[in-house]
Amino acid sequence: MDLRDTGESEEALLRRCSDVIKYSVKTGHPRFFNQLYAGMEPYSTVGSFITEAIKTSLYTYEVAPVFTLVEQAVLKKMIEVIGWEDGDGTFNPGGSMSNMYALNLARYRHSPDIKENGLFGVKRQVIFTSQDAHYSLSKGAAFLGIGTKNICTVPTDERGRMVPSALEELILKAISESAEPIMVNATAGTTVIGAFDPIDQIADVCEKYGLWLHVDACWGGAVLLSERHKHLVKGIDRTCFCTHQLLSTAFLVSIFLKMYKLAPVSAQHLLQRCHSARASYLFQQDKFYDVSFDCGDKSIQCSRKPDAFKIWLLWKALGTSQLEQRVDRALAMAQSVTPEYANVCFWYIPPSLRSLPDGPELWEKIHKVAPVIKERMMKKGNMMLGYQMYQDKANFFRMVIINPDVGTDDLHFVLEETHRLGKDL
Amino acid sequence: MDLRDTGESEEALLRRCSDVIKYSVKTGHPRFFNQLYAGMEPYSTVGSFITEAIKTSLYTYEVAPVFTLVEQAVLKKMIEVIGWEDGDGTFNPGGSMSNMYALNLARYRHSPDIKENGLFGVKRQVIFTSQDAHYSLSKGAAFLGIGTKNICTVPTDERGRMVPSALEELILKAISESAEPIMVNATAGTTVIGAFDPIDQIADVCEKYGLWLHVDACWGGAVLLSERHKHLVKGIDRTCFCTHQLLSTAFLVSIFLKMYKLAPVSAQHLLQRCHSARASYLFQQDKFYDVSFDCGDKSIQCSRKPDAFKIWLLWKALGTSQLEQRVDRALAMAQSVTPEYANVCFWYIPPSLRSLPDGPELWEKIHKVAPVIKERMMKKGNMMLGYQMYQDKANFFRMVIINPDVGTDDLHFVLEETHRLGKDL
Repeated sequence: MDLRDTGESEEALLRRCSDVIKYSVKTGHPRFFNQLYAGMEPYSTVGSFITEAIKTSLYTYEVAPVFTLVEQAVLKKMIEVIGWEDGDGTFNPGGSMSNMYALNLARYRHSPDIKENGLFGVKRQVIFTSQDAHYSLSKGAAFLGIGTKNICTVPTDERGRMVPSALEELILKAISESAEPIMVNATAGTTVIGAFDPIDQIADVCEKYGLWLHVDACWGGAVLLSERHKHLVKGIDRTCFCTHQLLSTAFLVSIFLKMYKLAPVSAQHLLQRCHSARASYLFQQDKFYDVSFDCGDKSIQCSRKPDAFKIWLLWKALGTSQLEQRVDRALAMAQSVTPEYANVCFWYIPPSLRSLPDGPELWEKIHKVAPVIKERMMKKGNMMLGYQMYQDKANFFRMVIINPDVGTDDLHFVLEETHRLGKDL
Repeated sequence: MDLRDTGESEEALLRRCSDVIKYSVKTGHPRFFNQLYAGMEPYSTVGSFITEAIKTSLYTYEVAPVFTLVEQAVLKKMIEVIGWEDGDGTFNPGGSMSNMYALNLARYRHSPDIKENGLFGVKRQVIFTSQDAHYSLSKGAAFLGIGTKNICTVPTDERGRMVPSALEELILKAISESAEPIMVNATAGTTVIGAFDPIDQIADVCEKYGLWLHVDACWGGAVLLSERHKHLVKGIDRTCFCTHQLLSTAFLVSIFLKMYKLAPVSAQHLLQRCHSARASYLFQQDKFYDVSFDCGDKSIQCSRKPDAFKIWLLWKALGTSQLEQRVDRALAMAQSVTPEYANVCFWYIPPSLRSLPDGPELWEKIHKVAPVIKERMMKKGNMMLGYQMYQDKANFFRMVIINPDVGTDDLHFVLEETHRLGKDL
C-alpha cells in the first residue's frame, strides 16, 4: 500500500487494480443487502465515467454548459414528481449534506441575519425530529453551531413512525422554555426499519405553530415514482424542503425547495441568498451570458461534481414508466416477507434457544447471535447483510432489498444460509 | 433535455452521450487555463472509473476494506510530506468542505461543549484570514453559525500576502472588544494571484496569542512535493490543520490534522470526537474486526466516496520523484512569464489605449476589455482563460498553468490569440 519515490510498471499497476477489485466488496451482487445502496445501474455507471472523463465543476455555466442544463432538467422533473408547482434545488454529495442544507435554510428563513452575525446572543433554537431519524441531523446540529442537545427527538409508535401528538407536546414545551422552534424533520423511510412518518398530520402541527417542515426522503423518496406506493408520503406537497436519493444511483442526493409560502423572507432564490458569498473571481457579473445559469453560489461547495447526469442518463434510458416498475418490483419483493418498505428486519433464533422461556435472559442470548453469524458470513463471502440494535431490541438482521436483480431465490438463499451459519449457536 | 415517461433506444442514448461530450468544455485540453483545475491524469481517471464501478462508501471497513487501507496509505504519505511526525486526516468533496472542517475543529478545540450546546449565549468568536482568502471561509462562517461578519479580513501586502503585524493588531482589537479569537487561516496559494502567506511569521503571532493555525493549501500545497519550491510554505510543520488538493486530480481534497500541542483537548482522535454521532446501526461496536478501521465517524458525511484511490494510483504510477518533476515543470513554465506560483495574471491593452495617459479613465476602459475578449474567445473556442477584478484593479486575465501538457508554444499562442481577439478594441 505504501507510496514510494519511484513509479511502477504498467504491468504492476494492472495487477494492483485487479487486486483492488478482487478484494473489494461486490456491492453490485444481488446478495449484497448490507446498506441502503446496492446494485449497479449500467446507464448511471456510464454516466459517471463520462462525468469523470470530462472533469469539470458545476459552478459556472461557462465551464459546465451541458451539465448545468442537465441538472436543471432533473430538478424540474423531480419537482414535478413531488407534486409542487414550482421549486428550486441542488445536488449534494450525500444525504447528510442535504439535511444540513435543510437546517441552514430553515434557520435563514427564521432569522436571515444569522448568516452575517452568527448565533451569538441569539435565543436557543430547537429542531424536532423522530428518535429514528438519520444521524446526520445530529451531525448537522453540531456542525451548524446549533448543538446536538437542541435536536429534540420525538417518540415513535410501534411501527417506528413519529407520533404527531408527541411532537406537539414537545413544541409547546420548547416554547415554554423560551426556546425557538425552527424546523421539523419528518423521515420518509427510516434507516433501520424503513418507517414513514405521517407527513400530512405533521404538516398540520407545523402549520398550527408556523414551523417549517423538511422531509428527509433520502431513503423512501423512491415511492414518489410509484402510483401504488406514493400514499406513503402523502402530504409531501405541503412541505418546504425535501431531500431525495433516487433509486440505487447512490451518492447523488438533491434537495428541493418549494418556492412559495416561505414568509417572512421571500422564497425566490432562497438557496442562493442563504448560501451565496458572491466571489467576484468566479461569479463575475459582466460575463456575456445570462449569469443566472451560474448555479455555484446556491451551494456551500466550490467545486461540485455534475452528478445529476447519472440520473439524467438513467432516466432517459428507462423513462419514468420503467423507473416506476423497478420501485414496484423491489417493494413487492420486500413485501413478500415484510410489511415495511424495503427493509426486511428479522431475528435468527438458533434451535438451541427456541424452547427457552421469553425474558431478558433469552434476548441477551439472541443479541449475541447476529455478530457471530455476520463474522462467519463475511469469512465465507457469499452474501452480506447488516445487523444492529433498535431502541431496546436485541441485535437483528436488516436485509435491504433495492437491487433490481434480486429474485425470490436470493431471499430463500439468505434465510437458508443464515440457518446454516447459525444453527449450532 | 426533458425527462419523459418512456425510455430511449441504445442508439439514441449513444447519440446523447456523444452530444454531451461534444458540447462540454474540454478541460483536459492544454489551452484550458480557466480554473484551478486542468489536464487529465489518465491514471487518476482509471482510478475514478474503478471506484465508480465498485460503488461503495468509505464509512466502514466491512464495505470498503481496500479503499480504507488506500486512504490510510495516502494520508500517511502526505503527513510525511508535510513534515509532521504524526497526524490524522480525511478526504472531503472539495476544499470548501475542508476549510469548514478546519473551522469546526478549531471551534471544538477551543470549546468542546459547543458540539452539544450550540453557540447560543457563547461569547462572539472571530476567525482571521487574509482579504485574498478563498470565499469558502465566509461560506463556512455562515454555515457553521459563526457569521460572515466574524471573519476578520487581514490586509495583504503589494504581492497579496497577509501582513503579520496587521494580523496582530486585529487580534488585539478583537480581544479589546471582548470577542474570542478562534483560528487564523493562512493561505498557501491564493485563488486569484497565487500568493503565499508568510506561514512562519503568522505562526509566531498565533503562538504568542495561543491561536490555532490552519493553512488552506488547496491550491499551493503541491509545492510540498518540490525541493525547489517548498520554501514557499516554510513553517507549515508548525500548523495544526492543513487542507491540500494534490496536483490536478481535482475535487479530491484532504484535511490533515497535526496530532500534538492541541491542548486543552487532547489531539488524539480529534476528528472523530469533533464529528462523531456514533450511529449504532452503522458503527456497531460488537463487530468481529478492529472497529477503529471504520473511519466514517471522522466525517460529517455518511456516504463518502473513496476518492483517495485516484491519488494512490497516480502516485503508484509516477512515484514521488515524477510528481515532483511535474510540479517543477508547471512552475518553471509559469515562472517563465510571472514571478507568482502558477497564476499568470495580465492585462491586455489594445493598441488604441496604449498612448492614453495613465489615470482612472484609462483603467475604466481597460476594465471593459477582458469581458469582450472573453466573449469572442468562448465563441471561437480554441482556448479558455478567466478574468476578474482584484481589489481596486481593473479586470485582468488569469491564466492558470497546471496541466503537464502545456508547452511554451501554448503560452505564445495565448498571447498572440488574445491580441488577435482584442486588437480592434
